[in-house]
Amino acid sequence: MIPELSTPAAEKETSRVEAFSDGIFAIAITLLVLNLKVPDPHSISPLSASALVQVLSHQWPAYLALATSFATILIMWVNHHYLFKLVRRADTLFLFANGFLLMLVTIVPFPTALVAEYLETPAASVACAIYAGFFVLINLSYNLLWFAAAHHHRLLKPTVSTTQIRTLTRNYWLGVPLYLAATLLAFWHAEVSAGICSGLWIFWACTAYERRPVYT
Amino acid sequence: MIPELSTPAAEKETSRVEAFSDGIFAIAITLLVLNLKVPDPHSISPLSASALVQVLSHQWPAYLALATSFATILIMWVNHHYLFKLVRRADTLFLFANGFLLMLVTIVPFPTALVAEYLETPAASVACAIYAGFFVLINLSYNLLWFAAAHHHRLLKPTVSTTQIRTLTRNYWLGVPLYLAATLLAFWHAEVSAGICSGLWIFWACTAYERRPVYT
Amino acid sequence: MIPELSTPAAEKETSRVEAFSDGIFAIAITLLVLNLKVPDPHSISPLSASALVQVLSHQWPAYLALATSFATILIMWVNHHYLFKLVRRADTLFLFANGFLLMLVTIVPFPTALVAEYLETPAASVACAIYAGFFVLINLSYNLLWFAAAHHHRLLKPTVSTTQIRTLTRNYWLGVPLYLAATLLAFWHAEVSAGICSGLWIFWACTAYERRPVYT
Amino acid sequence: MIPELSTPAAEKETSRVEAFSDGIFAIAITLLVLNLKVPDPHSISPLSASALVQVLSHQWPAYLALATSFATILIMWVNHHYLFKLVRRADTLFLFANGFLLMLVTIVPFPTALVAEYLETPAASVACAIYAGFFVLINLSYNLLWFAAAHHHRLLKPTVSTTQIRTLTRNYWLGVPLYLAATLLAFWHAEVSAGICSGLWIFWACTAYERRPVYT
Repeated sequence: MIPELSTPAAEKETSRVEAFSDGIFAIAITLLVLNLKVPDPHSISPLSASALVQVLSHQWPAYLALATSFATILIMWVNHHYLFKLVRRADTLFLFANGFLLMLVTIVPFPTALVAEYLETPAASVACAIYAGFFVLINLSYNLLWFAAAHHHRLLKPTVSTTQIRTLTRNYWLGVPLYLAATLLAFWHAEVSAGICSGLWIFWACTAYERRPVYT
Repeated sequence: MIPELSTPAAEKETSRVEAFSDGIFAIAITLLVLNLKVPDPHSISPLSASALVQVLSHQWPAYLALATSFATILIMWVNHHYLFKLVRRADTLFLFANGFLLMLVTIVPFPTALVAEYLETPAASVACAIYAGFFVLINLSYNLLWFAAAHHHRLLKPTVSTTQIRTLTRNYWLGVPLYLAATLLAFWHAEVSAGICSGLWIFWACTAYERRPVYT
Repeated sequence: MIPELSTPAAEKETSRVEAFSDGIFAIAITLLVLNLKVPDPHSISPLSASALVQVLSHQWPAYLALATSFATILIMWVNHHYLFKLVRRADTLFLFANGFLLMLVTIVPFPTALVAEYLETPAASVACAIYAGFFVLINLSYNLLWFAAAHHHRLLKPTVSTTQIRTLTRNYWLGVPLYLAATLLAFWHAEVSAGICSGLWIFWACTAYERRPVYT
Repeated sequence: MIPELSTPAAEKETSRVEAFSDGIFAIAITLLVLNLKVPDPHSISPLSASALVQVLSHQWPAYLALATSFATILIMWVNHHYLFKLVRRADTLFLFANGFLLMLVTIVPFPTALVAEYLETPAASVACAIYAGFFVLINLSYNLLWFAAAHHHRLLKPTVSTTQIRTLTRNYWLGVPLYLAATLLAFWHAEVSAGICSGLWIFWACTAYERRPVYT
């Protein structure tokens, strides 16, 4: 009825949700470090400088998995932040889609730890398939969030053009087949699948970069 | 004495408490992931892809418990946020009730882990009763917070109507008998009790949705 | 040179430090839950509902320690927040005192876990003395922070009166002898010392309450 | 095209990145406490007050490592905060450099735990070299962040003078050779290297102090 008055309130609503989401992103990304295990000195025998180096370098899958998950969550945060900038107000579907995405983000340390623990075992295929498959899920839920915002221009700011929406929709969907391919590949070549996941955040980073001119 | 000057200061006070509460909600909800345990490769023998799948799928109570607790805390955050929007200023009783609620929220990962660990053991009844009983406690403390704010219109904004207060009071109290029933049921049918808890957040989500027109 | 312009910048500086401190308080208070250990089902034999109840109720020192530390940190946060409201700007000594206080706050989960683990063992005296002694340290560092702010009215807002400073200085110092007494008492009656610590936050809460009229 | 309008938007962009960075700093610094392990009562036999004191005092490397890492991250946060104050807007290189720095900050608890666990073992040299070497990396990434901001005055505010840039560039580079020396020294005298790292944050704190007049 008095749209001029209700707009700032709605804007404040969105900024609270965004601040809460930012908090969850920041905590989830920091908890990844808990997957780096300090080897028990008593389990190394005889304990020497070179033995410790050897044990620590055997943990390379944990380092790779941490770097990959960190970079991927960070880029997701950048994209999430960008999406919220285009949004004028939130509704229930949007809040649920956001809540579901956040739940998946908080769980990322779990598949990350799976890859770290199983990449050099006979069960590597399952660990890598779960890791890549988890990012298929995250991509789907990100697309659901975007759908909730952009379908029929539901919650977007009036300044967002139809061309921009179409470009973003296409970019966001690209992630699904890419991670799906990595998921399937895991059953034949687990390490290649892990390698692809390690690289895919670079793809997202580039997409984010290309999109920037639109945003400024 | 100079109410115009004291109002913005009081408002700022409330927003600090709310930001602090948001931080605690965000951290507690993210710490739930620490309940997902990566199985030790040395404990699976012989270690194979299918053996890992089997071990991971046996952890389904942990996944269910995480999803339930995540959804419940998230909805509680939405309601908490909504309650603070109706509040004009904070007093000591309100701050204590809020502090007690926050303590319970930070503890949620503990009963969640109990259910995850004991749902398929002979002690399932106790684990589920503690889980549901813990949410009885949380509902009571939420009602205490609401009482501190709304009793005799103590701390509410003048724009909040008596009808609105009555509706909210009724909605908030509904949670207590529902979770109490789930608590008692746990001693006969632990898994049914767990199932009810898994569903109750949907009830709260619906209540939150119905309330929205009031808020806008 | 242009004090009118530099004041808002300095104010913003303080608010950044305060937001950072708030974040650390919120995380430290939430990490306390990690001290609640879910008993391993394989360690309970025979595993039954009543056996689980017994094991969980044996963990009462952990619950008491969590509640005590939570309440104490929360009250410290309220006081910390109140202190920052009186402060006009920060300098190096103030920032260092604040940093030292924050470090102690992040460590609180450690002495808390010590009490939880050792309250019912022959080493209870040491655990309780460390716990109470740690709060002596925290009280000292809080007084250092207040000294950095209030000595010769260094960093306080001009509106803070000398009477108010004197009252606060006296209130803040009260904590040191109280926790010191609890520390010494631990060597004779560990559980009485733990009980005193459990109650001392109520004392602080009351002090905070008495102070409120000054603040409004 | 309309620089007046785009400036506040860009400023808001930077403040979001800064808030996110602050969150990660706050969480990483608080997670350090997880490295303090409460000794298992069953591992001390016979369990007595003096035995617990002895076990706890044997953990001194953990306390030293926590204090060192806490102080170092805190000073890094102060410097990071200061750097962002000089920056007008962010670009992709700057965001990547910041993301890389944040990843390293979240990992600090890992080398900290290594030193805590191995300082009194024959593998102390490797643990200390990794610790100091990790801070070489952090210093390099901090310099990359500064380069991204200050090279050809790319992203700095117009008020930042060339002299100021030169002073900061020199100060920031000093950390690299100092930590590099500590890294190499670790192979001969591990404890001296640890001692140097424990002291280096004081050097940074002093640098931060000297710089303050520039900032006011």
